[in-house]
Amino acid sequence: MTDLLRATRAHTLALAAPLSDEDAQLQSMPDASPAKWHLAHTTWFFETMVLTPYLRGYCVFDERWPRLFNSYYESLGPRHARPQRGLLSRPSLTEVKAYRAHVDAALADLLPHAPAESRTLIELGCHHEQQHQELLLTDILHAFSCNPLLPAYDAAPPPKAAAPEQAWLKHPGGIVSIGHDGNGFAFDNEGPCHQALLAPFEISNRLVTCGEYADFIDAGGYREPLLWLSDGWAMVQAQGWQRPAYWLEDGRVFGPHGVHAMDPNAPVMQLSFYEACAYAEWAGARLPTEFEWEAACGLPGFAQAADQAWQWTRSSYAPYPGFRPAAGAVGEYNGKFMVGQQVLRGGSLATPPGHARPTYRNFFPPAARWQFSGVRLAR
Amino acid sequence: MTDLLRATRAHTLALAAPLSDEDAQLQSMPDASPAKWHLAHTTWFFETMVLTPYLRGYCVFDERWPRLFNSYYESLGPRHARPQRGLLSRPSLTEVKAYRAHVDAALADLLPHAPAESRTLIELGCHHEQQHQELLLTDILHAFSCNPLLPAYDAAPPPKAAAPEQAWLKHPGGIVSIGHDGNGFAFDNEGPCHQALLAPFEISNRLVTCGEYADFIDAGGYREPLLWLSDGWAMVQAQGWQRPAYWLEDGRVFGPHGVHAMDPNAPVMQLSFYEACAYAEWAGARLPTEFEWEAACGLPGFAQAADQAWQWTRSSYAPYPGFRPAAGAVGEYNGKFMVGQQVLRGGSLATPPGHARPTYRNFFPPAARWQFSGVRLAR
Amino acid sequence: MTDLLRATRAHTLALAAPLSDEDAQLQSMPDASPAKWHLAHTTWFFETMVLTPYLRGYCVFDERWPRLFNSYYESLGPRHARPQRGLLSRPSLTEVKAYRAHVDAALADLLPHAPAESRTLIELGCHHEQQHQELLLTDILHAFSCNPLLPAYDAAPPPKAAAPEQAWLKHPGGIVSIGHDGNGFAFDNEGPCHQALLAPFEISNRLVTCGEYADFIDAGGYREPLLWLSDGWAMVQAQGWQRPAYWLEDGRVFGPHGVHAMDPNAPVMQLSFYEACAYAEWAGARLPTEFEWEAACGLPGFAQAADQAWQWTRSSYAPYPGFRPAAGAVGEYNGKFMVGQQVLRGGSLATPPGHARPTYRNFFPPAARWQFSGVRLAR
Amino acid sequence: MTDLLRATRAHTLALAAPLSDEDAQLQSMPDASPAKWHLAHTTWFFETMVLTPYLRGYCVFDERWPRLFNSYYESLGPRHARPQRGLLSRPSLTEVKAYRAHVDAALADLLPHAPAESRTLIELGCHHEQQHQELLLTDILHAFSCNPLLPAYDAAPPPKAAAPEQAWLKHPGGIVSIGHDGNGFAFDNEGPCHQALLAPFEISNRLVTCGEYADFIDAGGYREPLLWLSDGWAMVQAQGWQRPAYWLEDGRVFGPHGVHAMDPNAPVMQLSFYEACAYAEWAGARLPTEFEWEAACGLPGFAQAADQAWQWTRSSYAPYPGFRPAAGAVGEYNGKFMVGQQVLRGGSLATPPGHARPTYRNFFPPAARWQFSGVRLAR
Ligand SMILES: [Fe+3]
Ligand SMILES: [Fe+3]
Ligand SMILES: [Fe+3]
Ligand SMILES: [Fe+3]
Repeated sequence: MTDLLRATRAHTLALAAPLSDEDAQLQSMPDASPAKWHLAHTTWFFETMVLTPYLRGYCVFDERWPRLFNSYYESLGPRHARPQRGLLSRPSLTEVKAYRAHVDAALADLLPHAPAESRTLIELGCHHEQQHQELLLTDILHAFSCNPLLPAYDAAPPPKAAAPEQAWLKHPGGIVSIGHDGNGFAFDNEGPCHQALLAPFEISNRLVTCGEYADFIDAGGYREPLLWLSDGWAMVQAQGWQRPAYWLEDGRVFGPHGVHAMDPNAPVMQLSFYEACAYAEWAGARLPTEFEWEAACGLPGFAQAADQAWQWTRSSYAPYPGFRPAAGAVGEYNGKFMVGQQVLRGGSLATPPGHARPTYRNFFPPAARWQFSGVRLAR
Repeated sequence: MTDLLRATRAHTLALAAPLSDEDAQLQSMPDASPAKWHLAHTTWFFETMVLTPYLRGYCVFDERWPRLFNSYYESLGPRHARPQRGLLSRPSLTEVKAYRAHVDAALADLLPHAPAESRTLIELGCHHEQQHQELLLTDILHAFSCNPLLPAYDAAPPPKAAAPEQAWLKHPGGIVSIGHDGNGFAFDNEGPCHQALLAPFEISNRLVTCGEYADFIDAGGYREPLLWLSDGWAMVQAQGWQRPAYWLEDGRVFGPHGVHAMDPNAPVMQLSFYEACAYAEWAGARLPTEFEWEAACGLPGFAQAADQAWQWTRSSYAPYPGFRPAAGAVGEYNGKFMVGQQVLRGGSLATPPGHARPTYRNFFPPAARWQFSGVRLAR
Repeated sequence: MTDLLRATRAHTLALAAPLSDEDAQLQSMPDASPAKWHLAHTTWFFETMVLTPYLRGYCVFDERWPRLFNSYYESLGPRHARPQRGLLSRPSLTEVKAYRAHVDAALADLLPHAPAESRTLIELGCHHEQQHQELLLTDILHAFSCNPLLPAYDAAPPPKAAAPEQAWLKHPGGIVSIGHDGNGFAFDNEGPCHQALLAPFEISNRLVTCGEYADFIDAGGYREPLLWLSDGWAMVQAQGWQRPAYWLEDGRVFGPHGVHAMDPNAPVMQLSFYEACAYAEWAGARLPTEFEWEAACGLPGFAQAADQAWQWTRSSYAPYPGFRPAAGAVGEYNGKFMVGQQVLRGGSLATPPGHARPTYRNFFPPAARWQFSGVRLAR
Repeated sequence: MTDLLRATRAHTLALAAPLSDEDAQLQSMPDASPAKWHLAHTTWFFETMVLTPYLRGYCVFDERWPRLFNSYYESLGPRHARPQRGLLSRPSLTEVKAYRAHVDAALADLLPHAPAESRTLIELGCHHEQQHQELLLTDILHAFSCNPLLPAYDAAPPPKAAAPEQAWLKHPGGIVSIGHDGNGFAFDNEGPCHQALLAPFEISNRLVTCGEYADFIDAGGYREPLLWLSDGWAMVQAQGWQRPAYWLEDGRVFGPHGVHAMDPNAPVMQLSFYEACAYAEWAGARLPTEFEWEAACGLPGFAQAADQAWQWTRSSYAPYPGFRPAAGAVGEYNGKFMVGQQVLRGGSLATPPGHARPTYRNFFPPAARWQFSGVRLAR
């Protein structure tokens, strides 16, 4: 636990290290948050959920800050409006780092004699912070993508991708076990563990590549309404979508390593659910359900499970049978978002090592395009 | 078939009979359509899908009209913008009725020697028109609800409701058969028939009543964020929701019979999915999934199945395993709407007799409040 | 007075005569009102301002209606929201006509012994109704322009226009008298009569023609930002303006007589202030101020003063020196609109005969394009 | 000239000195710009208008930057969208300061042998930069006002205000000279100098105080529609205005010195034109026209002319008789904004010394509330 905590807290700082004070301030849309805010919010989570209730004599670092760094917990009082997080030039990045150090020190004080409930919450706080690590990266990339200079988060050249030959993996269907069995950490939305009945299906051994997606574009995929869900086609027209979010007009792509040539073997990413569905339709296939994905991810040959891009599923985000949110503030963690979103499975190149699991349920609205989100086909 | 066609066509006209030319013109929001448009669109469906391809020598009634009365079929050419349907004072209601007569006559010509495919499409056209019959009523009621005079569609007093005593019906779960088996008409979205695995559950024998819902309001249900889905609470705040859509501030309610006293025994209606969920949460229960609903609807004691209000389910609208849309224009009928909506099951007092089935899947966005949509609890 | 009242009331009905009940219901944008609403509102004005205070024993026709037909008088209580006027299918056109007859009869009762103040208000009511006569026509044309069938208000062919040879009329400037001198009726915004100092200027003898405006379009006028006011260029881009509001892509134009060929000699109309300014800039000229217009309109050779199109001026709508609104509800008539609008002078082919005067001040926001609004150049 | 240039450039840096890199990045609304952007844009102006055309061998500092720092000059190519200026974390504040130094050095090279036209443009560049100095301050204050911590730009306490006794100064009217006579620098919109005819009027010797404005609020000024222009009342309702922009609910006020007690003797500021008009109406007075203001500002006893707050006038921003924009890019400086705005006269505590003149015409849309904008009454 001590190691997990230390490593997690350090990794967040490391992710923010390439950013200037100004970079860390950027909020490019209401759905994204400044890096500085992620640094502070994850710290607020430990302060509020762990230190205040469990560390005797703990003093809140600054009593005006919880209002700034509470994300969405109605039970914890009023919050600074989400779309205005980018307007918080104060506290400064330096002050936020001092806040982190203060809370880290207090957690170190607590850990040796932390009661069991608090240990559970510290573990939750670590996994929560890991989620924000990925968001920190996707959010700053979105912000950089809005700057005509298209700055590189990481000056190193992008790694060269190698796509395995595409193949269909067969699954016989039948009754399968879905959800987390309680051994080790999992988020509440991964349970209760239960059984589901699947028809036989096939699933691709790997993700759709940029080269394959370019064929879809060249074939007029963004101009043919019959390939699209109705809401998706409305977005194509209203937003003028013509290619993935970070593909440039000149054929190059933008990413963590700045602007570079499109690599036809790399998995296509920064796709919305709508684009994923349209591509699948064009390819004569479909998206897997989240249950199919979970049942199939252990099949031999199942590649790129969690290290490249999250994989849109045809399942909307809903409670598992028997799901009940926890009592108290942490009960707001997942359950209240279970409408209007699609489940993504797997993990991405931005997911912290050890964070994802086969039962892990990521979720985003179907129009979201700024995540490392790609496509694995089924049929 | 001839009887179904004749009865369906006549019933639509009967529904429009209480409306003046001006009433039939009303469009009160982009999601609703004028009664006149419903009259014309259902006719256009027969003309386009049946008469033009299958009746030799058939002449389109007015070649400028398909553009006006095509709803959303991308494969059938450009369409008049949906939010502007209320601006079509021409063609007049009289002309639209002449259009109906023209098409009815042509269908009568065709029927005696209609080929099999055309008969399938005529049947589809009848069921399509029945769907629009309910919409015609819900849409005109919404329009009337925007008029401070709150006109009555039907001057008769509302029927007196009698709610059965509430009881929980037990279902053992297990593998159940879901979807339509192909005997008789069904929409494409009701299939393929397949098996699903359910955990044991209980479902209420009847719908939530107005009196029960009033208790929720009195208990502060619209002021307690922790009862609501996050998107739902955002709607409550943005729209100022304080009660069902057609409940007036003075405690009376508006409906097909105009304004009258709230009947505590009547099922509560004109609820959004968000309100249905918040009520269920407050009541210590939940909404059934669409599979639970379908499996339970034949249980002894299962009342108000399809004659009062559609029942929101916890299932989002998605394709069944193996679902493929039909080829051609009718393929756009259902599949392209399978995202961002919730399934409702059952039927309502406005559903034409014979239209609904246990496998019937109605669907609306979670914020929709102008339908005859209510709540049946599960647990 | 009796004649004016009778003629005015009859003319409004005559203008509505070509409209069906459905036509009279149309509201195509928040700034426009249904013909039926115009018929009722002008009647409400007499009822509220004249009959209720001055006719002993007068009973309001329907006490629920003033809320529906009060336009913007804050001092007269709450109003039905303006953008929702098109949703009032009830009262019907027939009922509104009965309302008119009821009020006409009461006014006939009052007239023989009407006190002086009431006679002033009746006169105001007549001129008010004349204003709405022009709006009734411009509003129904806008509504018809939204119908792909582009119905004709008047089935007769458009009159053939003859443009006089363009010439510049010289005005020496100096101190001129501006505003109404109090002889005969005028609106409050035309006074007080006062002196203004003008520099010498020249003004065109006639309006800009469609042929001249087509040259501007052909020369790329809608693609050259430097010709436009900043707000105007923003509208061009946001709205995709490429030609006057009622010019069709195919070179024909829409108007009271439906669709017909563009007449190069006819004055160009349905222009916004922005387009008027851009044209003037392109033509090496400018718009006159409203004072220049008033000083010049009596010059020999000044043609098309008030019979073709209102003429945008470079003057924004502001109070004259010493202007004070009247006490009571009629004080809301003009003064509260004196910001954010431009003055138009003259009169149009839709202005009722006898309504306009040289001192008359019409006004619209600079982006308004659905009026009979054209351009007279100055320099 | 050298002194003006050096002093102006230094003053801008001094104004930005209290700001952190993060502060300098803030953009709180589309109408406001980050301090860093102001620093760069004023520099771009010199680079583009002066150095590139007149300094032989000058190299643009970074050829990707003109696109970022061109404000609105259509003739100078495409621009980064105004609402996205806050997303430019790169270039950094440090880089922008290096840009300033680079351009300052080049200007120093040019100055000794600068041709006459370039000297005119350098002078314009200085006055342009002074305008942005005031905006830099009003924009950062707006941004700070959006932070719940309400940071102080200047930690010193606010100065104590002393309001002179209110008195009415009489002006006899008659023909007055308006506009700049060409001696010394003036913006193009201040000319041509011309004559205007004024009726006799009275004007207040000082600005309306906070104490007086508090009386207006206490008397229900924000709840009485009859005091307001129609557009103003719409804003009151839509935006929930209840007091000036920077007055807090608890009776304190926010400003350059952070949050402090309201000083009843200080001039009220951060008012919209609508509020200025409503206050004047309530006080039985009116706003002066810009001509009255200019004619009266030299009267004995005319206090607070240009050192406290800009003063809304009843004049909309329009070209003076004979005004023609300059040829070339600088022609876009003022003329294209001459619609939809109201003129403010005087100057404020944030106006750089020596910047304003009696003929100076400031302008803002009537709803703008983030400037140092107050009220001087006339009657
Ligand atoms: Fe969080
Ligand atoms: Fe349909
Ligand atoms: Fe009126
Ligand atoms: Fe500038």
